Amino acid sequence: MKEKLEELKKRFAVVNDLQRAAAVLGWDQQTYMPPRGASARAEQLATLQKLAHEHFIADENGALLNDLAASAAQLPYDSDDTSLIRVTKRDYDQAKRVPPALVEEMARVASLAFEAWHHARAESNFKLFQPHLEKNVALRIQLANYLGYTDRIYDALLDQYEPQMTTAQVEAIFAPLKKEIVALVRKIAHKADAVDAAVLHREYAEQTQWDFGVQVIKRIGFDFERARQDKSAHPFTTSFALDDVRITTRLSKNFLPSALFGTIHETGHALYDLGGRAELDRTPLAGGASLGAHESQSRLWENVVGRSRGFWQFWFPRLRETFPAQLADQTAESFYRAVNKIAPSFIRVEADEVTYGLHIMLRFEMENALVEGRLQVADVPEAWNAKMKEYLGIVPPDDARGCLQDVHWSYGDLGYFATYLLGSMFAVQLYDKATRDVPAIPEQIARGEFGALLGWLRQNVHTHGRKFTLDELARRVTGEPLQSRSYVAYLKKKFGEIYQV
Amino acid sequence: MKEKLEELKKRFAVVNDLQRAAAVLGWDQQTYMPPRGASARAEQLATLQKLAHEHFIADENGALLNDLAASAAQLPYDSDDTSLIRVTKRDYDQAKRVPPALVEEMARVASLAFEAWHHARAESNFKLFQPHLEKNVALRIQLANYLGYTDRIYDALLDQYEPQMTTAQVEAIFAPLKKEIVALVRKIAHKADAVDAAVLHREYAEQTQWDFGVQVIKRIGFDFERARQDKSAHPFTTSFALDDVRITTRLSKNFLPSALFGTIHETGHALYDLGGRAELDRTPLAGGASLGAHESQSRLWENVVGRSRGFWQFWFPRLRETFPAQLADQTAESFYRAVNKIAPSFIRVEADEVTYGLHIMLRFEMENALVEGRLQVADVPEAWNAKMKEYLGIVPPDDARGCLQDVHWSYGDLGYFATYLLGSMFAVQLYDKATRDVPAIPEQIARGEFGALLGWLRQNVHTHGRKFTLDELARRVTGEPLQSRSYVAYLKKKFGEIYQV
Repeated sequence: MKEKLEELKKRFAVVNDLQRAAAVLGWDQQTYMPPRGASARAEQLATLQKLAHEHFIADENGALLNDLAASAAQLPYDSDDTSLIRVTKRDYDQAKRVPPALVEEMARVASLAFEAWHHARAESNFKLFQPHLEKNVALRIQLANYLGYTDRIYDALLDQYEPQMTTAQVEAIFAPLKKEIVALVRKIAHKADAVDAAVLHREYAEQTQWDFGVQVIKRIGFDFERARQDKSAHPFTTSFALDDVRITTRLSKNFLPSALFGTIHETGHALYDLGGRAELDRTPLAGGASLGAHESQSRLWENVVGRSRGFWQFWFPRLRETFPAQLADQTAESFYRAVNKIAPSFIRVEADEVTYGLHIMLRFEMENALVEGRLQVADVPEAWNAKMKEYLGIVPPDDARGCLQDVHWSYGDLGYFATYLLGSMFAVQLYDKATRDVPAIPEQIARGEFGALLGWLRQNVHTHGRKFTLDELARRVTGEPLQSRSYVAYLKKKFGEIYQV
Repeated sequence: MKEKLEELKKRFAVVNDLQRAAAVLGWDQQTYMPPRGASARAEQLATLQKLAHEHFIADENGALLNDLAASAAQLPYDSDDTSLIRVTKRDYDQAKRVPPALVEEMARVASLAFEAWHHARAESNFKLFQPHLEKNVALRIQLANYLGYTDRIYDALLDQYEPQMTTAQVEAIFAPLKKEIVALVRKIAHKADAVDAAVLHREYAEQTQWDFGVQVIKRIGFDFERARQDKSAHPFTTSFALDDVRITTRLSKNFLPSALFGTIHETGHALYDLGGRAELDRTPLAGGASLGAHESQSRLWENVVGRSRGFWQFWFPRLRETFPAQLADQTAESFYRAVNKIAPSFIRVEADEVTYGLHIMLRFEMENALVEGRLQVADVPEAWNAKMKEYLGIVPPDDARGCLQDVHWSYGDLGYFATYLLGSMFAVQLYDKATRDVPAIPEQIARGEFGALLGWLRQNVHTHGRKFTLDELARRVTGEPLQSRSYVAYLKKKFGEIYQV
């Protein structure tokens, strides 16, 4: 077994190298690439992704995986080797179903669609993006049909980001959650003036914001020897290796939370990747369990920690030293309340913790309608605005603040959005368990110490890489399946107290 | 023919994409990669390079090239298609002769040698580097024997960087050139005090240097829509596509020429790559004719233009506005003289225009002696210092400023150095022809206008990509072979006037 396993790992290392190389090219495209470089970059990415796919689905890999499956089954389910074979065999069987030409085409179309989206958003002109989105949707429908599904076409797409999660499961979680959130939003709406967030819209010098953010994430545990931060239009995290993780942020002179919480959010993702084990690096088990699991880490640090009262007990005095004029009239408590203001808004990534879920549900529902043919791409702006009106009571004044705001559809990433809300839920489920295991965590956070929480996350989540599904991870770490109960309780308690509802 | 040619181009496009992807990873490694990312990056680069090599030497490519050779011969020698087949067939036949195991071994040894060199240079301890250099030399001798040669073993190595140039040709050029340069250096040595360059060592704020450099290269024609500049420890130019070219520079607070002329030098390289034709992009004909041809462009803009009196007539007033305190006591003329000070020095990359050639000849002669077995690696420091004494009259105080200064031998790049001097020569040969064709060029430069010169270079040099050898290009553009006559006349005239010798 040992020899065959080594051979398999060697073969997968080549796939990994190609995927990581593609990630470098993708990162460069969003951070530094000159504007005209896009079309050549599209070809290069398509080639890398096609080769990675071809090397992954090589028949030799299938034979090795089959040969190894029997002996692997005799080892514990959670051993590295058994997990490698189990997880990769599933990936392999799925990838085998997809023609390399489709993979190449999806990459090429997406790369051009990204440029078109960028342009369309800048001009708030959906028509510029529409033909690209039509191609992306058509290609994802093709992809889903190749991958196969038993119940809903969307299952095949969702599975790409959240393995083994089904559309029906998500709907079963979202339906009651939507009721709770809508009810909470309505209650808070009656007390909208209870929180004043005007302080966040004062003028904050961008470089100073950047420097403060760096100070915060260094203290949280972001290691600049193994990672770095750059600027991009749409913040993201990407990993080129266990010891080379990149985050990006964007700075808004007149909106403090954009960079501050964006940086902490991406740091949450980065800490997950940086917390992997060296034994899993350059194997298919490197990285996070799923996008939902990944988002649990970013949302945990951004919201459960970063928007907590304790966090600002420590950081507010430092922030006020940094921006004395802007924060002269504030206290840690007033600032804590400001960063937790609940109000319907247009932009998902700037949405508060309560309304955020509704932004996700809107996208999840629209994507389902798109791939099931119940919604045409041309009708997306209208449908978007109708749902915004229904769930949040507001209508975007233009498509830049509506259906053009997110980058995901430009990449063709349909099936992705639900993981954000699953992650937000899981963040609370994890934090509840962490504080049961280590009750000192909240006090430590209030002293600006994050080591106990980060250590708990490393030991319980990060170390496993891609070995488990989100639900497996939830059961293993918290003793129960992924659930929204903790999340709803958290929202009700936190915002019930702030808004007295 | 058309169908087979299209098939061949499609296959080569994949090779090109892999090479360009490797270039992106290499660029990132030298600009932004966090320190700990190096070892994973080495694996990724090795994978990309191995795959590019495998895809290039595929038997199908050989068969297509053979099938196409006959019909291609019926088209004009300089047609795109004939050139593609001629140039690529030569590359293919050469690549086929090298066993993949040797390629892998060279890469492995070079990677360790680079680390050892870095360490050895920092400690100025040649012994630490010696065993690695011995391996690199032995492997290059093996490489040369696989590649084959008729006259001198060095021919096979030189050919890797300067196709079809022979050692005997270079020697025939260098021998009389050396006499001329040595004589000029001696004459100038007697008037060493005639030029005062102290102004260059005053304190210049780095960001201001950067901004001034950007202003200069924008005016020269560097297009930030298709290219960008970043910082790196060792300046370089790399191209990811016709519309995505990257240069780097380094800033030295107390030495103005470092960034200023470095930026202009790399811009010369970049303009060559940016001046290619779209039809050749993503084919093996993209890029420059050879390293010598490439260096002709960088040296032309850096020295023939950038260190000319006319150039500073226009730019000095602007530079003095930028650094009023530092340049208060200077005139355009005194500054022009300062940037043209001639003095023997230890470091090649900081050498002036006159002594530069001697640094090259020293390396060229030593490399020949090494691969012909006339010089043992253990004796390199002694031989280096003896030649420095003979050619420049100075002896490096340590090996860090002697035989350990250049990175090339750590990579195993033997055969490379001569191209720097061939390029410097060709720069003058080209500029002479350009000014005969367009006599207004010097006056335009003195008005800060560079369009006529750039246009001439695009039309006569850049547009051909890799279609011709350096000598073919010289004959085609200037009507005579590559020669040193123009270069010697240029040096004598320019520095004879400055130093009154």
